[in-house]
Amino acid sequence: MSELSQLILDRIRDVPDYPQPGVLFKDITPLLGDPVAMAAVVDELAGLAEVDKIVGIEARGFILAAPVAYRAAAGFVPVRKKGKLPAATLEESYDLEYGSATIEVHRDAFKPGDRVLIVDDVLATGGTARATIDLVERAGGHVVGIAVLMELAFLKGRERLPEVDLHSLVIV
Amino acid sequence: MSELSQLILDRIRDVPDYPQPGVLFKDITPLLGDPVAMAAVVDELAGLAEVDKIVGIEARGFILAAPVAYRAAAGFVPVRKKGKLPAATLEESYDLEYGSATIEVHRDAFKPGDRVLIVDDVLATGGTARATIDLVERAGGHVVGIAVLMELAFLKGRERLPEVDLHSLVIV
Repeated sequence: MSELSQLILDRIRDVPDYPQPGVLFKDITPLLGDPVAMAAVVDELAGLAEVDKIVGIEARGFILAAPVAYRAAAGFVPVRKKGKLPAATLEESYDLEYGSATIEVHRDAFKPGDRVLIVDDVLATGGTARATIDLVERAGGHVVGIAVLMELAFLKGRERLPEVDLHSLVIV
Repeated sequence: MSELSQLILDRIRDVPDYPQPGVLFKDITPLLGDPVAMAAVVDELAGLAEVDKIVGIEARGFILAAPVAYRAAAGFVPVRKKGKLPAATLEESYDLEYGSATIEVHRDAFKPGDRVLIVDDVLATGGTARATIDLVERAGGHVVGIAVLMELAFLKGRERLPEVDLHSLVIV
């Protein structure tokens, strides 16, 4: 295991029975609170690809994606839950375990062909990641990769993103 | 007006009738998408005070506060809407125009006496800012200031934060 992976795993807290009984939640707030570990994570993510835009996904995804955009000198584009972006949007809906969700991006967020890296904290089932890739491509961006702090391998999200360069700093 | 203020104002878009008829919404996404302007904003905010922790407020506040934490080599602490933080929390409720809202922070987010800067995008009525200050102080942090990209002066939020060092990069 790499030094960075160990640095991350040491700062992820397992919280049992959140958000519901039987789920072991991976809490990244101890990592966020440690500036040395965060700098290592942000620098690693920012070095993965030369891009014009970094996309962050509401809400926790913003916390990693925004400093990566700063470090990479790339623009930051928020993908938000429906109704939260003020100007004209494109939207994409996807299924959840119970019900569905809709995310949006501003129609003018990308210049045609903008190279885009999507940055998020956790890859779980891959539903949000899949919808975000499709949304960015429809909005004129070119997704060159998706980078996550942590991949929950047992949920097989990777299988839903076969055409994309997926980087996971830790796989649990 | 300073060069930085002009840089910011040129990248804020007025969106009429959002989120409801008669409201002129200040959309910061053009600023977020411009890496040169964002770097200037983040560098300015990070230089305001020597602190141990930067607090960001869900969700849009995360987009500025997280890179400021990175730039300042400070820890990042998220203040979130009720129910979104997995471990033991403290909470603070406050009144909105219609109804009320509750925000939370992890009980162990601060070491006693941690110096804290709260960073948010907009200061409006000051309700969220007031609640965040009180919450951070109850959790053991020492709020040395609050910094916002944009202060909506006509809503008089500043009057609700009399004891705090408030920095606004632009006042509109």
